[in-house]
Amino acid sequence: MPHATGERNGTSERNGTGALNVARKLIASHLVDGEMAPGGEIALRVDQTLTQDATGTMVMLELEALGLDRVRTDVSVQYVDHNLLQADERNMADHLFLRSACRRYGLWYSGPGNGVSHPTHMQRFGVPGATLAGSDSHTCAAGALGMLAIGAGGLETAMAMAGEPLHLTMPDVWGVRLTGAPPPWVSAKDVILEMLRRHGVRGGVNRIIEYHGPGLASLTAMDRHVIANMGAELGATATVFPADGRVREFLRAEGRADDFAELLADPGAAYEVEEEIDLSALEPLIARPGSPGDVVPVRDVAGEEVHQVVIGSSANPGLRDLASVAAIVRGRRVHPGVSLDVNPASRSILLDLTRMGAATDLLQAGARIHQAGCLGCIGMGQAPAIGRNSLRTFPRNFRGRSGTEDDRVWLCSPETAAAAALTGVITDPRDLPVDPPALRLPGAAASAADLLEPPLPPDEARRVELEKAPSIGALPELDPLPDDLDVPVAIKVGDDVSTDEILQAGARALPFRSDIARLADFAFVRIDEDYPERARAAGPHAVVGGRNYGQGSSREHAAIAPRHLGLRLVLACGYARIHRQNLVNFGILPLEFADEADYDRVERGDALKIPDVRGALASGGDVEVRNATKGETYRTRHRLSPRQRELVAAGGQIPLLRGDRRSGSPASGARG
Amino acid sequence: MPHATGERNGTSERNGTGALNVARKLIASHLVDGEMAPGGEIALRVDQTLTQDATGTMVMLELEALGLDRVRTDVSVQYVDHNLLQADERNMADHLFLRSACRRYGLWYSGPGNGVSHPTHMQRFGVPGATLAGSDSHTCAAGALGMLAIGAGGLETAMAMAGEPLHLTMPDVWGVRLTGAPPPWVSAKDVILEMLRRHGVRGGVNRIIEYHGPGLASLTAMDRHVIANMGAELGATATVFPADGRVREFLRAEGRADDFAELLADPGAAYEVEEEIDLSALEPLIARPGSPGDVVPVRDVAGEEVHQVVIGSSANPGLRDLASVAAIVRGRRVHPGVSLDVNPASRSILLDLTRMGAATDLLQAGARIHQAGCLGCIGMGQAPAIGRNSLRTFPRNFRGRSGTEDDRVWLCSPETAAAAALTGVITDPRDLPVDPPALRLPGAAASAADLLEPPLPPDEARRVELEKAPSIGALPELDPLPDDLDVPVAIKVGDDVSTDEILQAGARALPFRSDIARLADFAFVRIDEDYPERARAAGPHAVVGGRNYGQGSSREHAAIAPRHLGLRLVLACGYARIHRQNLVNFGILPLEFADEADYDRVERGDALKIPDVRGALASGGDVEVRNATKGETYRTRHRLSPRQRELVAAGGQIPLLRGDRRSGSPASGARG
Repeated sequence: MPHATGERNGTSERNGTGALNVARKLIASHLVDGEMAPGGEIALRVDQTLTQDATGTMVMLELEALGLDRVRTDVSVQYVDHNLLQADERNMADHLFLRSACRRYGLWYSGPGNGVSHPTHMQRFGVPGATLAGSDSHTCAAGALGMLAIGAGGLETAMAMAGEPLHLTMPDVWGVRLTGAPPPWVSAKDVILEMLRRHGVRGGVNRIIEYHGPGLASLTAMDRHVIANMGAELGATATVFPADGRVREFLRAEGRADDFAELLADPGAAYEVEEEIDLSALEPLIARPGSPGDVVPVRDVAGEEVHQVVIGSSANPGLRDLASVAAIVRGRRVHPGVSLDVNPASRSILLDLTRMGAATDLLQAGARIHQAGCLGCIGMGQAPAIGRNSLRTFPRNFRGRSGTEDDRVWLCSPETAAAAALTGVITDPRDLPVDPPALRLPGAAASAADLLEPPLPPDEARRVELEKAPSIGALPELDPLPDDLDVPVAIKVGDDVSTDEILQAGARALPFRSDIARLADFAFVRIDEDYPERARAAGPHAVVGGRNYGQGSSREHAAIAPRHLGLRLVLACGYARIHRQNLVNFGILPLEFADEADYDRVERGDALKIPDVRGALASGGDVEVRNATKGETYRTRHRLSPRQRELVAAGGQIPLLRGDRRSGSPASGARG
Repeated sequence: MPHATGERNGTSERNGTGALNVARKLIASHLVDGEMAPGGEIALRVDQTLTQDATGTMVMLELEALGLDRVRTDVSVQYVDHNLLQADERNMADHLFLRSACRRYGLWYSGPGNGVSHPTHMQRFGVPGATLAGSDSHTCAAGALGMLAIGAGGLETAMAMAGEPLHLTMPDVWGVRLTGAPPPWVSAKDVILEMLRRHGVRGGVNRIIEYHGPGLASLTAMDRHVIANMGAELGATATVFPADGRVREFLRAEGRADDFAELLADPGAAYEVEEEIDLSALEPLIARPGSPGDVVPVRDVAGEEVHQVVIGSSANPGLRDLASVAAIVRGRRVHPGVSLDVNPASRSILLDLTRMGAATDLLQAGARIHQAGCLGCIGMGQAPAIGRNSLRTFPRNFRGRSGTEDDRVWLCSPETAAAAALTGVITDPRDLPVDPPALRLPGAAASAADLLEPPLPPDEARRVELEKAPSIGALPELDPLPDDLDVPVAIKVGDDVSTDEILQAGARALPFRSDIARLADFAFVRIDEDYPERARAAGPHAVVGGRNYGQGSSREHAAIAPRHLGLRLVLACGYARIHRQNLVNFGILPLEFADEADYDRVERGDALKIPDVRGALASGGDVEVRNATKGETYRTRHRLSPRQRELVAAGGQIPLLRGDRRSGSPASGARG
């Protein structure tokens, strides 16, 4: 897998000129602690938060534990978009709980059927120049509007709601200069697939990607959403675009022209890393099954039989993404061997699609139009048959995430998806005997604003009782870090292990997301089905991982569930940002091999020892880990800020919160 | 629960005049064996069959076991409508298998998203004067067109495809004379709820219900579908309407005017049982949670809080059923505490709904529009929260069928559903401050005809290979009845136990429908979770039931799964028609207490003995069952025809088929 980086630029963007790029302007205007020097910890004021239902129930329990009276952000929104199957009573019980918590704590509530958080948030709440923290890894999509939008763990998002700043490592800013305009049959998805083709799933780690240059003019705000959304697949901290005329156009169409504020890079602003993409030179691309980073030209794999095509999701949510497929299949018939599934990303987009007649075109061609939501993108239904190719406009295709263990899921643009739906085989859309779709989209978007429930006034909110069905569960009890760590390695995994592999979502596991004891039975089973039993037997234990450990979804359950089984220490070559913070938040110590060669020396069952672990963490960046089985010692780095060391030592954020509550002193930010 | 019958009329409809009602005309024109004397076994030629995916995989395996080359009916259609959640790979594997079987055996294939079998079949294939057998209990809905449409077990449907006649007990014909026209806010659903209010869930057992009289003029063919569909809930063998001007109108709108053939009762035709309903005197009715037969006026229960409203299903599938809700909510907002779910019954109805703007009205009001299919009606998603009221336009509300064990599901008309969606409480729609909807429906229905795959030509069909993923499974191995029955009672259940209680559908169990060993773990667990373990331990065993044992769904899995655990004998006060035949088809002996008082004397664990059971069955209608534990003997009736006795003795139809195949002689009807 290629993960060469763009050209490294030694100069900072201040570069003697004082010219700032968009990312630095956003950080500078929200910086409450730290310095804007790459690698150091910074703390940012959070203007907005979003949560979704798969992470939100835990977040609301955390707000309760915080003793919060009312959120202290400008806007906090709870979306119900992930688990809409409602296979049993737990699902609607979650909805009732989340709605009651929104009413209690002053959040907006977007109920099931309103749509996926990211496009809906962008349509209704996105504001150029603001910061957004969200307990979903694709929160970064809102960068399309000139926001600094960052995916985070649930606990961090809860803390942000309580007025606490968001902590992160100051990233490099990676300037990607776009020139030209995409040719026919090439669209925004091919731009981000080109980035993944060049750099793979670790290419964006510890970076903010900032798109700039003349090519921006050819990309609407929703096109930019496509690109910003899948910055998550590059491992980037965030993706930002300027708030320019295309953003103004978008907000005007949404009836929110007043929310526009221009935000552009200063002339001559520089970037730590530089890159260029000539949009006019792009061709249709596709990610092969297993990884969003395994990208090839569609033509290279044309002819493979396809049995399912799914369009929609937060990676291709726009009206044009669905309408272009409708235009391509209009008056034609989906191949009889193909199920064409249409997942509208939001109710207002579905309304527009219906009004403009495109929904009719899709239905007549044989499509199945579903309610607005994440659906198959998060493995809630739409699972393909074993070994059959499924083409999706989704952001992720980690093995098994579809709900089918031996799946073959490909990621592509709506145009490439439509071509396969018609022909029944992977097809470069340029080879279709069809003119490129000429879309006329409505100038004003349908508004579903009145279908989001606004926060209650404070007096009324205080009288609201949380509606907790028995399935809602409670926050786990977490004990502090022991004085001496002495833990066996319960599992050793490879590079790029995703949180979908650590703790799957999907129709089997998601219903238990509020029941940690039950959920823990799913931990790591995609990789090793005996892990839960072995981990339970071992009690306190360690996990050894490769590079980019914990990529993908932000779900903190991937930390909580193994922690419930006794996980105290992860030793890896490198971490995905959100998961690493989630480990810290739940009192699991994340260490990095100083020498990656040591990774090969550790085996499952080895006993790892860190005597006086608190002292070892306090004494600087290096920690020695003794492998008592092999009689070896490994040098590792903890890279923990003092704040993070405190969290790990306490056993995580929850004991700290509880401690505060028990001593009568609510967390500082939560004071009424 | 009321189950008074209509006035019994001693005279036959021949009644000295030779005048025939519609039901007798349909039977007479298809009778291949037996006499039209109520109570005797008759055999009918079957013109059409339908199967759905929940029963269809087993049916296709049965066709394979039959050695069938090509179906011998006029039309056989396989619909995929039940299991559309696709929570894992099994679902799409089923679709692939079903499609391949359609291509192999000469069936039409209606893929996922085309819609529910019953309205789709009526729209595309229904023909006045024809017979239809379907492996779904609501097959009776097609009686709306002047067809004799009968729900049957999968095996009987497979045999019908092979050209074998359908056997049933000649029923009484129950004439229901309709007068007047429904007042505003009252619709067809209230007519069938009135029948259920008067007669309960056993009121139609061993009867064909025939509607006639001047009130028919106010009911469209799709209104009649509503009434015919829920004849299943009365336990009726079938429901018939005449093929009159309204049917002509329907077929013309479907573009099938040429398929119309008038079929009316002869003037002066009489009925074994007579009944009258003055439509103008009806009011909005609702079935309370737990049984379709527990019907009360909506006004009596008005004010109860509602958290979910679902419209659609085969019980209210028509465009008017959805469009009237759209008209009521138009320009208004669904109550924030309510999820309004719209389940279009077919793609063509969804197309019409979209084209006329009603889909937009529903979306704007806050509805969630789903793909066309059964969805929550068969417990595939849409499960309500525990103890919360859910109002549905569905046909059934057996406890737990929704996917939630402690559910509170009410059955009502679309008008009553719409009223609750707006107010958030059960509301008599006449109390809404809204004018009754004035609908203008399109004169011609959208056609989705080209989205159903027609049968392949025979030469091409013979080359098709069945696509069997490992999850498809195989037909079970069934041994013959032993010479002497000596079996303990493994479970004793009460009256009106439904096949949903014997073997649930829904998101948990349906995916395993092709895997009998796994599916058996769900047998009876709604009533007694220890049954599977106890039954496995016992081996051969008996079940004791009350009246109307096995009502509801036609699924033969409710016979196969307990049989897999060792069930050989059911002793009950009475049976629902389809389930009793399914027991016979799978070699389980169904006996009826001659004296219902004996039901009270048997207990779980009692050892029941029938020495020389073959001899006992051969010697006439009575069988003595010895309760060795209690030292008592019960007189029972078998009511089995010689054909049925042969089936039971052989261990069911499958061993007979296999025996034929092994000896090189395929079942007679299956000869090429």
